Amino acid sequence: MEIISENRSHGGRQLVVKHASNSTSTDMTFSIFLPPQVENWPCPVLWYLSGLTCTHANVTEKGEYRAACAEHGVIFVAPDTSPRGEGVPDDAEGTYDFGLGAGFYVDATEEPWAANYRMWSYVTDELPTLIAAEFPADMDRQSITGHSMGGHGALTVALNHPDRFRSVSAFAPIVAPSQVPWGQKALAGYLGDDRAAWRRHDTVALIDDGASVDEILVDVGKSDPFIEKELRPELLEESCKAAGIPLTLRRHAGYDHSYYFISTFMADHIAWHAERLKRG
Amino acid sequence: MEIISENRSHGGRQLVVKHASNSTSTDMTFSIFLPPQVENWPCPVLWYLSGLTCTHANVTEKGEYRAACAEHGVIFVAPDTSPRGEGVPDDAEGTYDFGLGAGFYVDATEEPWAANYRMWSYVTDELPTLIAAEFPADMDRQSITGHSMGGHGALTVALNHPDRFRSVSAFAPIVAPSQVPWGQKALAGYLGDDRAAWRRHDTVALIDDGASVDEILVDVGKSDPFIEKELRPELLEESCKAAGIPLTLRRHAGYDHSYYFISTFMADHIAWHAERLKRG
Repeated sequence: MEIISENRSHGGRQLVVKHASNSTSTDMTFSIFLPPQVENWPCPVLWYLSGLTCTHANVTEKGEYRAACAEHGVIFVAPDTSPRGEGVPDDAEGTYDFGLGAGFYVDATEEPWAANYRMWSYVTDELPTLIAAEFPADMDRQSITGHSMGGHGALTVALNHPDRFRSVSAFAPIVAPSQVPWGQKALAGYLGDDRAAWRRHDTVALIDDGASVDEILVDVGKSDPFIEKELRPELLEESCKAAGIPLTLRRHAGYDHSYYFISTFMADHIAWHAERLKRG
Repeated sequence: MEIISENRSHGGRQLVVKHASNSTSTDMTFSIFLPPQVENWPCPVLWYLSGLTCTHANVTEKGEYRAACAEHGVIFVAPDTSPRGEGVPDDAEGTYDFGLGAGFYVDATEEPWAANYRMWSYVTDELPTLIAAEFPADMDRQSITGHSMGGHGALTVALNHPDRFRSVSAFAPIVAPSQVPWGQKALAGYLGDDRAAWRRHDTVALIDDGASVDEILVDVGKSDPFIEKELRPELLEESCKAAGIPLTLRRHAGYDHSYYFISTFMADHIAWHAERLKRG
Protein backbone atom coordinates (compact mmCIF):
# COMPACT_ATOMS: atom_id res chain seq x y z
CA MET A 1 0.00 0.00 0.00
CA GLU A 2 1.48 3.31 -1.08
CA ILE A 3 0.10 6.69 -0.01
CA ILE A 4 0.17 8.81 -3.18
CA SER A 5 -0.95 12.00 -1.49
CA GLU A 6 -2.18 13.18 1.87
CA ASN A 7 -3.82 16.57 2.49
CA ARG A 8 -5.35 17.99 5.61
CA SER A 9 -8.92 19.09 4.88
CA HIS A 10 -11.92 19.98 7.02
CA GLY A 11 -10.03 18.86 10.11
CA GLY A 12 -9.38 15.37 8.73
CA ARG A 13 -7.05 13.73 6.24
CA GLN A 14 -7.74 13.14 2.54
CA LEU A 15 -5.56 10.30 1.29
CA VAL A 16 -5.06 8.83 -2.17
CA VAL A 17 -3.72 5.28 -1.97
CA LYS A 18 -2.30 2.84 -4.52
CA HIS A 19 -2.00 -0.87 -3.95
CA ALA A 20 -1.45 -4.08 -5.92
CA SER A 21 -4.83 -5.78 -6.31
CA ASN A 22 -5.22 -9.54 -6.35
CA SER A 23 -8.73 -9.18 -7.74
CA THR A 24 -7.80 -7.22 -10.84
CA SER A 25 -4.13 -8.27 -11.13
CA THR A 26 -3.30 -4.57 -11.53
CA ASP A 27 -2.43 -1.66 -9.30
CA MET A 28 -5.60 0.02 -8.05
CA THR A 29 -5.97 3.56 -6.74
CA PHE A 30 -8.62 4.75 -4.30
CA SER A 31 -9.21 7.77 -2.09
CA ILE A 32 -10.13 7.70 1.57
CA PHE A 33 -11.13 10.62 3.79
CA LEU A 34 -10.45 10.10 7.48
CA PRO A 35 -12.52 12.50 9.60
CA PRO A 36 -10.99 14.08 12.71
CA GLN A 37 -12.86 11.59 14.93
CA VAL A 38 -10.56 8.71 13.86
CA GLU A 39 -8.02 10.15 16.27
CA ASN A 40 -10.37 9.06 19.07
CA TRP A 41 -12.18 5.92 17.91
CA PRO A 42 -12.85 3.76 14.83
CA CYS A 43 -15.34 5.47 12.55
CA PRO A 44 -18.10 4.12 10.31
CA VAL A 45 -17.48 3.82 6.58
CA LEU A 46 -19.48 5.27 3.70
CA TRP A 47 -18.58 3.74 0.34
CA TYR A 48 -18.99 5.85 -2.77
CA LEU A 49 -18.96 4.09 -6.14
CA SER A 50 -18.35 6.39 -9.12
CA GLY A 51 -19.92 6.57 -12.56
CA LEU A 52 -18.78 5.99 -16.13
CA THR A 53 -15.44 7.59 -17.13
CA CYS A 54 -14.61 8.50 -13.52
CA THR A 55 -11.70 7.59 -11.29
CA HIS A 56 -11.46 8.17 -7.54
CA ALA A 57 -10.47 11.75 -8.40
CA ASN A 58 -13.80 13.11 -9.65
CA VAL A 59 -15.70 12.80 -6.38
CA THR A 60 -12.58 13.55 -4.36
CA GLU A 61 -12.24 16.92 -6.07
CA LYS A 62 -15.85 17.81 -6.84
CA GLY A 63 -18.01 15.79 -4.42
CA GLU A 64 -18.06 18.29 -1.52
CA TYR A 65 -18.33 15.44 1.01
CA ARG A 66 -15.56 16.32 3.44
CA ALA A 67 -17.39 18.95 5.51
CA ALA A 68 -20.31 16.59 6.17
CA CYS A 69 -18.06 13.58 6.82
CA ALA A 70 -16.04 15.63 9.30
CA GLU A 71 -19.23 16.80 11.00
CA HIS A 72 -20.65 13.28 11.34
CA GLY A 73 -17.41 11.36 11.83
CA VAL A 74 -17.72 9.22 8.72
CA ILE A 75 -14.88 7.68 6.67
CA PHE A 76 -15.49 8.13 2.92
CA VAL A 77 -13.95 5.60 0.52
CA ALA A 78 -13.99 6.16 -3.25
CA PRO A 79 -12.61 3.29 -5.40
CA ASP A 80 -11.77 3.49 -9.09
CA THR A 81 -14.33 2.29 -11.68
CA SER A 82 -12.20 -0.28 -13.51
CA PRO A 83 -8.75 -1.83 -13.60
CA ARG A 84 -6.19 0.26 -15.47
CA GLY A 85 -2.63 -0.04 -16.70
CA GLU A 86 -0.49 -1.80 -19.23
CA GLY A 87 -1.99 -4.99 -20.55
CA VAL A 88 -5.52 -4.22 -19.35
CA PRO A 89 -7.82 -4.63 -22.36
CA ASP A 90 -10.05 -1.72 -23.38
CA ASP A 91 -13.00 -1.44 -25.69
CA ALA A 92 -11.57 -1.65 -29.23
CA GLU A 93 -13.90 1.12 -30.35
CA GLY A 94 -12.74 3.38 -27.54
CA THR A 95 -16.26 4.11 -26.28
CA TYR A 96 -16.74 5.59 -22.82
CA ASP A 97 -19.33 3.09 -21.63
CA PHE A 98 -17.37 -0.17 -21.78
CA GLY A 99 -13.84 -1.16 -20.77
CA LEU A 100 -11.63 1.35 -18.97
CA GLY A 101 -13.64 3.55 -16.61
CA ALA A 102 -16.69 1.34 -17.07
CA GLY A 103 -16.24 -1.81 -14.99
CA PHE A 104 -19.92 -1.86 -13.94
CA TYR A 105 -18.98 -3.52 -10.63
CA VAL A 106 -19.12 -7.10 -11.93
CA ASP A 107 -16.64 -9.99 -12.15
CA ALA A 108 -16.33 -10.50 -15.88
CA THR A 109 -16.58 -14.08 -17.13
CA GLU A 110 -16.08 -13.29 -20.82
CA GLU A 111 -12.71 -12.98 -22.55
CA PRO A 112 -10.63 -10.86 -22.74
CA TRP A 113 -12.16 -9.16 -19.67
CA ALA A 114 -12.19 -12.00 -17.15
CA ALA A 115 -8.57 -11.65 -16.03
CA ASN A 116 -8.74 -8.00 -14.90
CA TYR A 117 -12.34 -6.78 -14.83
CA ARG A 118 -13.19 -8.16 -11.39
CA MET A 119 -14.59 -5.04 -9.78
CA TRP A 120 -17.23 -6.99 -7.83
CA SER A 121 -14.60 -8.93 -5.93
CA TYR A 122 -12.54 -5.78 -5.56
CA VAL A 123 -15.23 -3.57 -3.99
CA THR A 124 -17.06 -6.28 -2.00
CA ASP A 125 -14.10 -8.29 -0.73
CA GLU A 126 -10.54 -7.14 -1.34
CA LEU A 127 -10.85 -3.41 -0.69
CA PRO A 128 -13.02 -3.81 2.46
CA THR A 129 -10.42 -6.24 3.81
CA LEU A 130 -7.67 -3.72 3.11
CA ILE A 131 -9.62 -0.84 4.68
CA ALA A 132 -10.34 -2.93 7.79
CA ALA A 133 -6.67 -3.87 8.14
CA GLU A 134 -5.05 -0.52 7.44
CA PHE A 135 -7.42 2.18 8.72
CA PRO A 136 -9.32 2.94 11.95
CA ALA A 137 -12.62 1.82 10.38
CA ASP A 138 -15.56 0.32 12.27
CA MET A 139 -16.55 -2.31 9.69
CA ASP A 140 -19.67 -3.22 11.65
CA ARG A 141 -20.99 0.15 10.56
CA GLN A 142 -20.92 0.52 6.78
CA SER A 143 -23.19 2.26 4.31
CA ILE A 144 -22.93 2.65 0.56
CA THR A 145 -23.84 5.14 -2.13
CA GLY A 146 -22.83 5.94 -5.69
CA HIS A 147 -23.55 7.84 -8.87
CA SER A 148 -25.01 6.56 -12.14
CA MET A 149 -23.08 3.33 -12.92
CA GLY A 150 -21.87 3.61 -9.32
CA GLY A 151 -25.46 3.99 -8.10
CA HIS A 152 -26.08 0.68 -9.87
CA GLY A 153 -23.02 -0.65 -8.06
CA ALA A 154 -24.15 0.63 -4.65
CA LEU A 155 -27.67 -0.77 -4.97
CA THR A 156 -26.59 -4.19 -6.29
CA VAL A 157 -23.81 -4.53 -3.73
CA ALA A 158 -26.22 -3.65 -0.90
CA LEU A 159 -28.97 -5.97 -2.16
CA ASN A 160 -26.44 -8.83 -2.36
CA HIS A 161 -25.13 -8.07 1.17
CA PRO A 162 -28.23 -7.23 3.21
CA ASP A 163 -26.45 -7.74 6.53
CA ARG A 164 -23.36 -5.71 5.73
CA PHE A 165 -24.77 -2.23 5.12
CA ARG A 166 -26.82 -0.08 7.44
CA SER A 167 -28.14 1.96 4.55
CA VAL A 168 -27.94 2.47 0.80
CA SER A 169 -28.57 5.52 -1.37
CA ALA A 170 -27.78 6.62 -4.89
CA PHE A 171 -27.46 9.66 -7.13
CA ALA A 172 -29.04 9.19 -10.57
CA PRO A 173 -28.49 5.40 -10.56
CA ILE A 174 -28.85 2.94 -13.41
CA VAL A 175 -31.51 0.75 -11.78
CA ALA A 176 -32.30 -1.78 -14.49
CA PRO A 177 -29.18 -2.39 -16.58
CA SER A 178 -30.80 -5.39 -18.30
CA GLN A 179 -33.39 -3.04 -19.78
CA VAL A 180 -31.24 -0.10 -20.94
CA PRO A 181 -28.49 0.38 -23.57
CA TRP A 182 -25.55 1.11 -21.22
CA GLY A 183 -26.34 -1.93 -19.09
CA GLN A 184 -27.13 -4.33 -21.90
CA LYS A 185 -23.83 -3.54 -23.58
CA ALA A 186 -21.84 -3.91 -20.36
CA LEU A 187 -23.52 -7.01 -18.96
CA ALA A 188 -23.45 -8.83 -22.31
CA GLY A 189 -19.81 -7.83 -22.76
CA TYR A 190 -18.60 -8.83 -19.32
CA LEU A 191 -21.00 -11.67 -18.46
CA GLY A 192 -22.09 -13.06 -21.83
CA ASP A 193 -25.48 -13.51 -23.38
CA ASP A 194 -27.07 -15.68 -20.69
CA ARG A 195 -29.34 -13.15 -19.02
CA ALA A 196 -29.78 -15.33 -15.95
CA ALA A 197 -26.27 -14.30 -14.93
CA TRP A 198 -27.22 -10.64 -15.20
CA ARG A 199 -29.95 -10.71 -12.57
CA ARG A 200 -27.79 -10.38 -9.48
CA HIS A 201 -26.27 -7.29 -11.10
CA ASP A 202 -29.58 -5.64 -11.85
CA THR A 203 -31.29 -3.76 -9.01
CA VAL A 204 -34.81 -4.15 -10.34
CA ALA A 205 -34.28 -7.84 -11.13
CA LEU A 206 -32.79 -8.43 -7.68
CA ILE A 207 -35.79 -6.85 -5.97
CA ASP A 208 -38.19 -8.74 -8.23
CA ASP A 209 -36.31 -11.93 -7.26
CA GLY A 210 -36.79 -11.21 -3.57
CA ALA A 211 -33.62 -9.39 -2.51
CA SER A 212 -34.32 -6.62 -0.04
CA VAL A 213 -32.98 -3.76 2.04
CA ASP A 214 -34.66 -1.73 4.77
CA GLU A 215 -35.09 1.38 2.67
CA ILE A 216 -33.54 3.26 -0.27
CA LEU A 217 -32.82 6.97 -0.85
CA VAL A 218 -32.42 8.13 -4.46
CA ASP A 219 -31.97 11.63 -5.90
CA VAL A 220 -32.26 12.31 -9.60
CA GLY A 221 -32.32 15.49 -11.67
CA LYS A 222 -35.29 16.18 -13.88
CA SER A 223 -32.93 17.70 -16.47
CA ASP A 224 -30.63 14.66 -16.40
CA PRO A 225 -30.15 13.82 -20.10
CA PHE A 226 -29.95 10.10 -19.27
CA ILE A 227 -33.07 9.82 -17.15
CA GLU A 228 -35.45 8.41 -19.75
CA LYS A 229 -33.17 6.09 -21.69
CA GLU A 230 -30.58 4.86 -19.18
CA LEU A 231 -31.64 5.59 -15.59
CA ARG A 232 -35.40 4.96 -15.64
CA PRO A 233 -36.10 5.60 -11.95
CA GLU A 234 -39.76 4.71 -12.48
CA LEU A 235 -38.72 1.05 -12.82
CA LEU A 236 -37.18 1.16 -9.35
CA GLU A 237 -40.29 2.85 -8.05
CA GLU A 238 -42.48 0.04 -9.40
CA SER A 239 -40.29 -2.77 -8.07
CA CYS A 240 -39.93 -1.19 -4.63
CA LYS A 241 -43.67 -0.64 -4.44
CA ALA A 242 -44.39 -4.26 -5.40
CA ALA A 243 -41.80 -5.57 -2.92
CA GLY A 244 -42.78 -3.22 -0.11
CA ILE A 245 -39.35 -1.60 0.13
CA PRO A 246 -39.62 2.02 1.31
CA LEU A 247 -38.11 4.19 -1.43
CA THR A 248 -37.52 7.90 -1.08
CA LEU A 249 -37.17 9.04 -4.70
CA ARG A 250 -36.62 12.76 -5.08
CA ARG A 251 -36.84 14.30 -8.55
CA HIS A 252 -35.18 17.72 -8.62
CA ALA A 253 -36.22 20.30 -11.20
CA GLY A 254 -33.38 21.77 -13.24
CA TYR A 255 -30.62 19.41 -12.08
CA ASP A 256 -28.52 17.41 -14.52
CA HIS A 257 -26.19 14.38 -14.26
CA SER A 258 -23.04 16.27 -13.20
CA TYR A 259 -21.16 16.80 -9.96
CA TYR A 260 -22.98 20.14 -9.70
CA PHE A 261 -26.02 17.96 -9.00
CA ILE A 262 -24.24 15.39 -6.83
CA SER A 263 -22.49 17.98 -4.66
CA THR A 264 -25.80 19.73 -4.02
CA PHE A 265 -27.29 16.69 -2.32
CA MET A 266 -24.12 15.05 -0.99
CA ALA A 267 -24.43 16.54 2.51
CA ASP A 268 -28.05 15.32 2.67
CA HIS A 269 -27.02 11.78 1.83
CA ILE A 270 -24.17 11.78 4.32
CA ALA A 271 -26.48 13.03 7.10
CA TRP A 272 -29.05 10.38 6.16
CA HIS A 273 -26.46 7.60 6.27
CA ALA A 274 -24.88 8.97 9.45
CA GLU A 275 -28.21 8.84 11.24
CA ARG A 276 -28.47 5.14 10.39
CA LEU A 277 -24.81 4.45 11.12
CA LYS A 278 -25.17 5.94 14.60
CA ARG A 279 -28.09 3.73 15.60
CA GLY A 280 -27.53 0.84 17.97
CA MET B 1 -20.94 37.31 -24.08
CA GLU B 2 -21.32 33.58 -24.62
CA ILE B 3 -22.54 31.20 -21.92
CA ILE B 4 -20.23 28.18 -22.24
CA SER B 5 -22.05 26.09 -19.64
CA GLU B 6 -24.84 26.43 -17.14
CA ASN B 7 -25.55 23.93 -14.35
CA ARG B 8 -28.06 24.03 -11.57
CA SER B 9 -26.30 23.61 -8.23
CA HIS B 10 -27.26 24.23 -4.61
CA GLY B 11 -30.48 25.85 -5.75
CA GLY B 12 -28.70 28.41 -7.92
CA ARG B 13 -26.99 28.51 -11.29
CA GLN B 14 -23.29 27.98 -12.00
CA LEU B 15 -22.34 29.63 -15.27
CA VAL B 16 -19.11 29.70 -17.25
CA VAL B 17 -18.99 32.69 -19.58
CA LYS B 18 -16.68 33.73 -22.42
CA HIS B 19 -16.44 37.26 -23.79
CA ALA B 20 -14.17 39.38 -25.94
CA SER B 21 -12.11 41.57 -23.63
CA ASN B 22 -11.03 45.10 -24.57
CA SER B 23 -8.52 45.10 -21.74
CA THR B 24 -6.58 42.04 -22.84
CA SER B 25 -7.49 42.05 -26.56
CA THR B 26 -8.32 38.36 -26.15
CA ASP B 27 -11.32 36.25 -25.28
CA MET B 28 -11.61 35.86 -21.52
CA THR B 29 -13.46 33.17 -19.59
CA PHE B 30 -14.89 33.53 -16.08
CA SER B 31 -17.32 31.64 -13.89
CA ILE B 32 -20.23 33.16 -11.99
CA PHE B 33 -22.49 31.50 -9.45
CA LEU B 34 -25.92 33.05 -9.13
CA PRO B 35 -27.55 32.07 -5.83
CA PRO B 36 -31.30 31.32 -5.74
CA GLN B 37 -31.98 34.77 -4.25
CA VAL B 38 -31.24 36.50 -7.58
CA GLU B 39 -34.72 35.43 -8.65
CA ASN B 40 -36.04 37.91 -6.09
CA TRP B 41 -33.59 40.79 -5.88
CA PRO B 42 -30.08 41.89 -6.93
CA CYS B 43 -27.47 40.13 -4.80
CA PRO B 44 -24.08 41.25 -3.49
CA VAL B 45 -20.92 40.10 -5.26
CA LEU B 46 -17.91 38.27 -3.84
CA TRP B 47 -14.91 38.34 -6.17
CA TYR B 48 -12.47 35.44 -6.02
CA LEU B 49 -9.06 35.88 -7.64
CA SER B 50 -7.19 32.64 -8.30
CA GLY B 51 -3.57 31.67 -7.87
CA LEU B 52 -0.68 30.72 -10.15
CA THR B 53 -1.45 28.16 -12.89
CA CYS B 54 -5.22 28.36 -12.24
CA THR B 55 -8.11 29.28 -14.49
CA HIS B 56 -11.69 29.97 -13.40
CA ALA B 57 -12.14 26.19 -13.30
CA ASN B 58 -10.06 25.29 -10.25
CA VAL B 59 -12.14 27.12 -7.68
CA THR B 60 -15.34 26.40 -9.59
CA GLU B 61 -14.74 22.66 -9.28
CA LYS B 62 -12.85 22.43 -5.98
CA GLY B 63 -13.70 25.58 -4.03
CA GLU B 64 -16.85 24.31 -2.26
CA TYR B 65 -18.33 27.83 -2.22
CA ARG B 66 -21.78 27.22 -3.67
CA ALA B 67 -23.54 25.94 -0.54
CA ALA B 68 -22.45 28.99 1.48
CA CYS B 69 -23.19 31.43 -1.36
CA ALA B 70 -26.68 29.94 -1.72
CA GLU B 71 -27.21 30.19 2.02
CA HIS B 72 -26.15 33.83 2.21
CA GLY B 73 -27.40 34.99 -1.18
CA VAL B 74 -24.00 35.97 -2.57
CA ILE B 75 -22.92 36.01 -6.23
CA PHE B 76 -19.44 34.48 -6.66
CA VAL B 77 -17.30 35.61 -9.61
CA ALA B 78 -14.05 33.84 -10.53
CA PRO B 79 -11.99 35.41 -13.36
CA ASP B 80 -9.08 33.78 -15.13
CA THR B 81 -5.51 34.58 -14.05
CA SER B 82 -4.10 35.82 -17.36
CA PRO B 83 -4.99 36.42 -20.98
CA ARG B 84 -4.80 33.28 -23.13
CA GLY B 85 -5.03 32.32 -26.76
CA GLU B 86 -3.17 32.55 -30.04
CA GLY B 87 -0.67 35.37 -30.18
CA VAL B 88 -0.57 35.90 -26.40
CA PRO B 89 3.10 35.79 -25.38
CA ASP B 90 4.19 33.32 -22.72
CA ASP B 91 7.34 32.95 -20.68
CA ALA B 92 9.97 31.61 -23.07
CA GLU B 93 11.23 29.25 -20.39
CA GLY B 94 7.75 27.86 -19.82
CA THR B 95 7.82 28.43 -16.07
CA TYR B 96 4.56 28.37 -14.11
CA ASP B 97 5.11 31.66 -12.28
CA PHE B 98 5.25 34.13 -15.19
CA GLY B 99 3.21 34.54 -18.38
CA LEU B 100 0.16 32.36 -18.96
CA GLY B 101 -1.68 31.61 -15.72
CA ALA B 102 0.43 34.18 -13.88
CA GLY B 103 -0.87 37.65 -14.72
CA PHE B 104 -0.35 38.92 -11.15
CA TYR B 105 -3.29 41.33 -11.55
CA VAL B 106 -1.24 44.19 -13.03
CA ASP B 107 -1.34 46.16 -16.27
CA ALA B 108 1.99 45.31 -17.85
CA THR B 109 4.04 48.19 -19.19
CA GLU B 110 6.96 46.13 -20.48
CA GLU B 111 7.11 44.49 -23.90
CA PRO B 112 5.97 41.99 -25.11
CA TRP B 113 3.43 41.85 -22.25
CA ALA B 114 1.87 45.29 -22.43
CA ALA B 115 -0.61 44.51 -25.20
CA ASN B 116 -2.41 41.60 -23.48
CA TYR B 117 -1.36 41.36 -19.83
CA ARG B 118 -3.77 43.97 -18.52
CA MET B 119 -5.41 42.00 -15.73
CA TRP B 120 -5.65 45.03 -13.44
CA SER B 121 -7.92 46.85 -15.88
CA TYR B 122 -9.77 43.61 -16.52
CA VAL B 123 -10.66 42.76 -12.92
CA THR B 124 -11.08 46.31 -11.61
CA ASP B 125 -12.90 47.90 -14.53
CA GLU B 126 -14.00 45.83 -17.51
CA LEU B 127 -15.33 42.74 -15.78
CA PRO B 128 -17.21 44.65 -13.04
CA THR B 129 -18.86 46.73 -15.76
CA LEU B 130 -19.87 43.56 -17.58
CA ILE B 131 -21.19 41.91 -14.40
CA ALA B 132 -23.21 45.02 -13.54
CA ALA B 133 -24.72 45.16 -17.01
CA GLU B 134 -25.50 41.49 -17.55
CA PHE B 135 -26.35 40.01 -14.13
CA PRO B 136 -28.67 40.85 -11.20
CA ALA B 137 -25.75 42.10 -9.11
CA ASP B 138 -25.92 44.78 -6.44
CA MET B 139 -22.64 46.53 -7.22
CA ASP B 140 -22.97 48.73 -4.15
CA ARG B 141 -22.27 45.62 -2.16
CA GLN B 142 -19.01 43.98 -3.24
CA SER B 143 -16.32 42.07 -1.37
CA ILE B 144 -13.16 40.41 -2.59
CA THR B 145 -10.99 37.42 -1.74
CA GLY B 146 -8.41 35.25 -3.44
CA HIS B 147 -5.73 32.62 -3.11
CA SER B 148 -1.94 33.02 -3.21
CA MET B 149 -1.25 35.25 -6.27
CA GLY B 150 -5.01 35.90 -6.16
CA GLY B 151 -4.77 36.80 -2.47
CA HIS B 152 -2.20 39.39 -3.56
CA GLY B 153 -4.69 40.49 -6.21
CA ALA B 154 -7.59 40.75 -3.74
CA LEU B 155 -5.60 42.73 -1.18
CA THR B 156 -4.05 45.15 -3.68
CA VAL B 157 -7.35 45.69 -5.51
CA ALA B 158 -9.12 46.40 -2.21
CA LEU B 159 -6.40 48.73 -0.93
CA ASN B 160 -6.54 50.68 -4.19
CA HIS B 161 -10.37 50.91 -4.06
CA PRO B 162 -11.17 51.54 -0.41
CA ASP B 163 -14.72 52.72 -1.16
CA ARG B 164 -15.67 49.88 -3.48
CA PHE B 165 -15.38 46.83 -1.23
CA ARG B 166 -17.16 46.13 2.01
CA SER B 167 -14.54 43.58 3.03
CA VAL B 168 -11.39 41.80 1.88
CA SER B 169 -9.93 38.42 2.84
CA ALA B 170 -7.35 36.04 1.45
CA PHE B 171 -6.18 32.45 1.52
CA ALA B 172 -2.40 32.09 1.74
CA PRO B 173 -1.74 35.40 -0.03
CA ILE B 174 1.52 36.77 -1.40
CA VAL B 175 1.60 39.93 0.74
CA ALA B 176 4.92 41.49 -0.23
CA PRO B 177 5.72 40.64 -3.85
CA SER B 178 8.57 43.17 -3.94
CA GLN B 179 10.35 41.11 -1.28
CA VAL B 180 9.86 37.53 -2.56
CA PRO B 181 11.03 35.58 -5.64
CA TRP B 182 7.61 35.04 -7.29
CA GLY B 183 6.72 38.69 -6.98
CA GLN B 184 10.11 40.12 -7.92
CA LYS B 185 10.14 38.07 -11.12
CA ALA B 186 6.59 39.05 -12.04
CA LEU B 187 6.72 42.74 -11.16
CA ALA B 188 10.09 43.24 -12.86
CA GLY B 189 8.85 41.34 -15.90
CA TYR B 190 5.54 43.14 -16.28
CA LEU B 191 6.37 46.57 -14.83
CA GLY B 192 10.12 46.94 -15.35
CA ASP B 193 12.93 47.61 -12.95
CA ASP B 194 11.66 50.87 -11.44
CA ARG B 195 10.46 49.65 -8.08
CA ALA B 196 8.39 52.77 -7.49
CA ALA B 197 5.88 51.37 -9.98
CA TRP B 198 5.62 48.15 -7.97
CA ARG B 199 4.37 49.74 -4.77
CA ARG B 200 0.68 50.01 -5.66
CA HIS B 201 0.84 46.28 -6.46
CA ASP B 202 2.40 45.26 -3.17
CA THR B 203 0.10 44.93 -0.16
CA VAL B 204 2.74 45.64 2.45
CA ALA B 205 4.11 48.62 0.49
CA LEU B 206 0.58 49.98 -0.01
CA ILE B 207 -0.13 49.82 3.71
CA ASP B 208 3.25 51.33 4.53
CA ASP B 209 2.39 54.13 2.08
CA GLY B 210 -0.88 54.82 3.85
CA ALA B 211 -3.50 52.80 1.96
CA SER B 212 -6.06 51.27 4.26
CA VAL B 213 -9.11 49.05 4.65
CA ASP B 214 -11.38 48.53 7.66
CA GLU B 215 -10.03 45.07 8.46
CA ILE B 216 -8.46 41.99 6.83
CA LEU B 217 -9.08 38.27 7.27
CA VAL B 218 -6.29 35.89 6.23
CA ASP B 219 -6.00 32.10 6.57
CA VAL B 220 -2.75 30.28 5.95
CA GLY B 221 -1.63 26.70 6.46
CA LYS B 222 1.34 26.03 8.68
CA SER B 223 2.38 23.22 6.30
CA ASP B 224 2.13 25.47 3.25
CA PRO B 225 5.44 24.89 1.44
CA PHE B 226 5.50 28.51 0.25
CA ILE B 227 4.88 30.20 3.58
CA GLU B 228 8.46 31.16 4.45
CA LYS B 229 9.83 32.09 1.04
CA GLU B 230 6.86 33.47 -0.93
CA LEU B 231 3.92 34.27 1.35
CA ARG B 232 5.58 35.69 4.48
CA PRO B 233 2.39 36.52 6.42
CA GLU B 234 4.50 38.02 9.23
CA LEU B 235 5.26 40.98 6.96
CA LEU B 236 1.53 41.69 6.65
CA GLU B 237 1.18 41.31 10.40
CA GLU B 238 3.90 43.92 11.00
CA SER B 239 2.52 46.43 8.50
CA CYS B 240 -1.06 46.08 9.73
CA LYS B 241 0.10 46.50 13.31
CA ALA B 242 2.08 49.63 12.45
CA ALA B 243 -0.85 51.05 10.43
CA GLY B 244 -3.52 50.11 12.95
CA ILE B 245 -5.44 47.91 10.48
CA PRO B 246 -7.22 45.09 12.32
CA LEU B 247 -5.86 41.83 10.86
CA THR B 248 -7.28 38.42 11.71
CA LEU B 249 -4.45 36.10 10.69
CA ARG B 250 -5.20 32.43 11.36
CA ARG B 251 -2.37 29.91 11.02
CA HIS B 252 -3.75 26.38 10.68
CA ALA B 253 -1.65 23.40 11.69
CA GLY B 254 -1.31 20.69 9.06
CA TYR B 255 -2.83 22.61 6.15
CA ASP B 256 -0.99 23.13 2.86
CA HIS B 257 -1.43 25.43 -0.16
CA SER B 258 -4.04 23.34 -2.01
CA TYR B 259 -7.77 23.52 -2.53
CA TYR B 260 -8.08 20.99 0.30
CA PHE B 261 -7.02 23.92 2.48
CA ILE B 262 -9.04 26.59 0.67
CA SER B 263 -12.27 24.56 0.63
CA THR B 264 -11.96 23.94 4.37
CA PHE B 265 -12.19 27.64 5.18
CA MET B 266 -14.22 28.86 2.20
CA ALA B 267 -17.58 28.75 4.03
CA ASP B 268 -16.03 30.74 6.90
CA HIS B 269 -14.84 33.45 4.53
CA ILE B 270 -18.17 33.65 2.74
CA ALA B 271 -20.06 33.96 6.04
CA TRP B 272 -17.61 36.65 7.16
CA HIS B 273 -18.04 38.64 3.96
CA ALA B 274 -21.82 38.08 3.96
CA GLU B 275 -22.12 39.60 7.42
CA ARG B 276 -20.37 42.75 6.16
CA LEU B 277 -22.28 42.77 2.86
CA LYS B 278 -25.60 42.70 4.72
CA ARG B 279 -24.83 45.71 6.90
CA GLY B 280 -26.44 49.05 6.12
